[in-house]
Amino acid sequence: MAAAELTTHDLIAQHRPTLDQALEAIRTRAYWSPHPEHPKAYGENGSLDAAAGKAAFDAVLNTRVDLGQPGTDDWVGGEVSPYGVALGVTYPHADVDVLLPAMAAGQRAWRDAGAEVRAVVCLEILKRISDRTHEFAHAVMHTSGQAFMMALQAGGPHAQDRGLEAVAYAYVEQVRTPDTAEWTKPQGKRDPLALTKTFTAVPRGIALLIGCNTFPTWNGYPGLFASLATGNAVLVKPHPRAVLPLALTVQVAREVLAEAGFDPNLVALAAERPGEGIAKTLATRPEIKIIDYTGSTAFGDWLEANARQAQVYTEKAGVNTVLVESTANYQGMLANLAFSLSLYSGQMCTTPQNLLIPRDGIRTDQGPKTYDEVVTDLARAVDGLLGDDARANALLGAIVNPDVKARIEAAASLGEVALASREVTNPEFPDAVVRTPVIVKLDGAKPDDEAAYMNECFGPVSFAVAVDSPADALALLRRTIREKGAMTVGAYTTDPEVEREIEEVCLEEAAQLSLNLTGGVYVNQTAAFSDFHGSGGNPAANAALTDGAFVANRFRVVEVRRDA
Amino acid sequence: MAAAELTTHDLIAQHRPTLDQALEAIRTRAYWSPHPEHPKAYGENGSLDAAAGKAAFDAVLNTRVDLGQPGTDDWVGGEVSPYGVALGVTYPHADVDVLLPAMAAGQRAWRDAGAEVRAVVCLEILKRISDRTHEFAHAVMHTSGQAFMMALQAGGPHAQDRGLEAVAYAYVEQVRTPDTAEWTKPQGKRDPLALTKTFTAVPRGIALLIGCNTFPTWNGYPGLFASLATGNAVLVKPHPRAVLPLALTVQVAREVLAEAGFDPNLVALAAERPGEGIAKTLATRPEIKIIDYTGSTAFGDWLEANARQAQVYTEKAGVNTVLVESTANYQGMLANLAFSLSLYSGQMCTTPQNLLIPRDGIRTDQGPKTYDEVVTDLARAVDGLLGDDARANALLGAIVNPDVKARIEAAASLGEVALASREVTNPEFPDAVVRTPVIVKLDGAKPDDEAAYMNECFGPVSFAVAVDSPADALALLRRTIREKGAMTVGAYTTDPEVEREIEEVCLEEAAQLSLNLTGGVYVNQTAAFSDFHGSGGNPAANAALTDGAFVANRFRVVEVRRDA
Repeated sequence: MAAAELTTHDLIAQHRPTLDQALEAIRTRAYWSPHPEHPKAYGENGSLDAAAGKAAFDAVLNTRVDLGQPGTDDWVGGEVSPYGVALGVTYPHADVDVLLPAMAAGQRAWRDAGAEVRAVVCLEILKRISDRTHEFAHAVMHTSGQAFMMALQAGGPHAQDRGLEAVAYAYVEQVRTPDTAEWTKPQGKRDPLALTKTFTAVPRGIALLIGCNTFPTWNGYPGLFASLATGNAVLVKPHPRAVLPLALTVQVAREVLAEAGFDPNLVALAAERPGEGIAKTLATRPEIKIIDYTGSTAFGDWLEANARQAQVYTEKAGVNTVLVESTANYQGMLANLAFSLSLYSGQMCTTPQNLLIPRDGIRTDQGPKTYDEVVTDLARAVDGLLGDDARANALLGAIVNPDVKARIEAAASLGEVALASREVTNPEFPDAVVRTPVIVKLDGAKPDDEAAYMNECFGPVSFAVAVDSPADALALLRRTIREKGAMTVGAYTTDPEVEREIEEVCLEEAAQLSLNLTGGVYVNQTAAFSDFHGSGGNPAANAALTDGAFVANRFRVVEVRRDA
Repeated sequence: MAAAELTTHDLIAQHRPTLDQALEAIRTRAYWSPHPEHPKAYGENGSLDAAAGKAAFDAVLNTRVDLGQPGTDDWVGGEVSPYGVALGVTYPHADVDVLLPAMAAGQRAWRDAGAEVRAVVCLEILKRISDRTHEFAHAVMHTSGQAFMMALQAGGPHAQDRGLEAVAYAYVEQVRTPDTAEWTKPQGKRDPLALTKTFTAVPRGIALLIGCNTFPTWNGYPGLFASLATGNAVLVKPHPRAVLPLALTVQVAREVLAEAGFDPNLVALAAERPGEGIAKTLATRPEIKIIDYTGSTAFGDWLEANARQAQVYTEKAGVNTVLVESTANYQGMLANLAFSLSLYSGQMCTTPQNLLIPRDGIRTDQGPKTYDEVVTDLARAVDGLLGDDARANALLGAIVNPDVKARIEAAASLGEVALASREVTNPEFPDAVVRTPVIVKLDGAKPDDEAAYMNECFGPVSFAVAVDSPADALALLRRTIREKGAMTVGAYTTDPEVEREIEEVCLEEAAQLSLNLTGGVYVNQTAAFSDFHGSGGNPAANAALTDGAFVANRFRVVEVRRDA
């Protein structure tokens, strides 16, 4: 290996202050981020501005992304953007019998580097990704279907924040135990017993990141960086329709590792042929000791049941509820909910699906509103938000796959349509499938309707479920979380007793609750360093982003003791 | 519920300093313990002295231990001491359909009490157990077969230390996230976004502790206190032959919980009829969300595979190795090993089994020693240590069950016997089965011998395995840890390169290593607050006592956020 171009001394000098700020942020959980959200913040100090980022993205289209990985036996790729553009990019296909041993070869040096060096190397990777935020924005947009601004923010700074948060948790977890200890036990009048002890954080092995289609970086970075920062090599298996953002990530990681004097094979990509389904094969390889997965409940459950040799962290599907009981800001509530239902065409694991509304109506600052009025006013709010096509395109993005489109089309058969979905034309990308949300009225007491609202209907489909009473709504909320899981719960109430009861349900069923949001924060958005994403305590996910449990079992501590 | 007799204010005033010292100890891992080891340290400040402890134990014999548990449908018990005494104690048998809901009833108040109050209540429980150390010593002795002094120390202060250590880890894990946070995100010229957030540690549900026969308190307290301190109710399912120590523990816990104003049913006992095997039934109940288990690999593996609704922490079996390459203190090494093989008749999960010795002999401070000389000298050292029957009884204790006795008797058929086991008479308990260790010579290269040394032979049976070279020994050590697991590894070498290689094997296979111990610390002993017990990274155990991973997933954090 060539002499390191990046010295650990320089990396520590450059990144330790950021690490310390991250450590403080996860302790106070106040607002903090080192990654700018504004597109115009990029272009200085080596970062790519909008034009340079777009040019970089264009330059990678129709090329081979050669990562220099050992065991590459083919070149594969067939991503077509939800905006209609075929990316034409190919990636290395791996002979895993060659690649996995090569990935293990660098682990000893990476382990011996220690927690701080691993953390600052991870921060250097994130810094270089941050510099290319505009380029990544296009890559995320043209794989997930997110609108550009969301792809830039959620796929860029917010994802980088989640990665940095994971590095901070991983670092602090590893340094809770000192490197060495002198242990001296008094023995009365005899000489004390004395031992010298060393403690070393050791990796579990090779980690597997199984990426998702909708948030390849945001959902991928926590696991990737948590595993890497705790000394593990990481094999990245992207979703076949969202390879590019993670391939670029792997490219940056390999470049930084090599420059810092480590084996670049500590991070590698496993792209697959269409229909190859390599996730199952990889997930049960004995070398794979950690798996991070975001996706369907069925495959998440399969991993938990079958990848028994590994620690498995899953984010699966849930059914998210908003309970509407009363509000002191009716227009604010409608606007807030309309935005939540529309953002990225409801294709977020955090988007509300079931809006529980008393059939006798609700109290508001604008007088009592019947169930029908609430639903109609919400439909009107969504219409108003998305009435202008340019704004609609900027909020909705594109439908990520034909299944989502089919669910929108099937929604009308489930009940009375309170708001029909409409097609929106995207003048820049005429092949993009753009649809506004559909809202369907259902009756909480009808078994046929229950079959609809008690299952996840991923995409811009929500159900206005009429319930008998707040107590009925609370019982349904509890049952939905317990049986189906929930990434988020929202609620609107002015009644302190109802509020207390909603909180109690969420505490008992371990669901994250947003109460009476009427401003510019939405139930489907969480901020790294402050908000937990998921709880790890209900069926929607077995882990939370990010807490101690997300990192503590990715490494073990080996003690060596000697007579002092 | 009656007004609390123990106020949280008083409990915090009394125990917070101890908690703070424990927090400091797990950070520095220097020697510390608040629980005295010397039998004469007890008898003041409310603690029972030797006579009072013995009297308390005698008073419980042939009685019913009525814990006042709901759903008690029978009284069961049939413990017979390994020293030959029938205890005659009966315990409540539970209708779990009644008991489990009753246990859940108190969880809300216990959760709302918060991490600090839960910690000091746990410390009060430990304090009262500590006061009764002499009584517990007899209970542990007459269920495990440990000799009295060991039962007092390992079953008393050392177990209490491990419990306190778990409380400290649980406390610090829960307070890493603040109770509340104000989050204010700048929005350029617009008003900032502002949220008020609350964070609550919530329990997973009811925890199940499945106790073991040999160390009911030492192996039971970490899981019990880790679960209780993180807000869970705990159901204690003792080993049918070691109920009393855990029944007394449950009794104390229930008493303290009630006095502190909490529901005593937060801790309950599940004793069973002979052959009832309720562990499987309990372990798969939907209410059970956490399981701690110490015992056979077969049942540990079953729990991991089948109790999918729970977090499962297992300590199973392993094959512990001591690699003997060279030594600068031959007599010290022999004495140290002889003690390790003899203590509690080798019935510790940490006792060495395979002694790997080069067939060409080793270098020592007393000149070169052949393989035969090393084995003969070790046999002589064990003989010398146990030559006096009184001392032998004090070290060996009694054989815990007929299976161990059968393994001793079968050992002679496995190879050439270097040291035969002999019967020792215990004048106080003539029915006790007391046996000295047997050492059998095996050849590392012979397949028949491998079938013996590559399987756990629990009890006072060890194998002097002749190996071709240090490299051969290292390869066998690695394979043994990887395939069979190891709670401990020991090694003797004066060669820095060999030492480095042994360390590397232990780091890569995640095993805890003791190097060149020749004094009064033994490979099979670990000290709470400083040493990890197991690593959680090899097949012997999926968890270490105690680290962040042992506590972090016993609770979840639920966030509630509101517009500020």
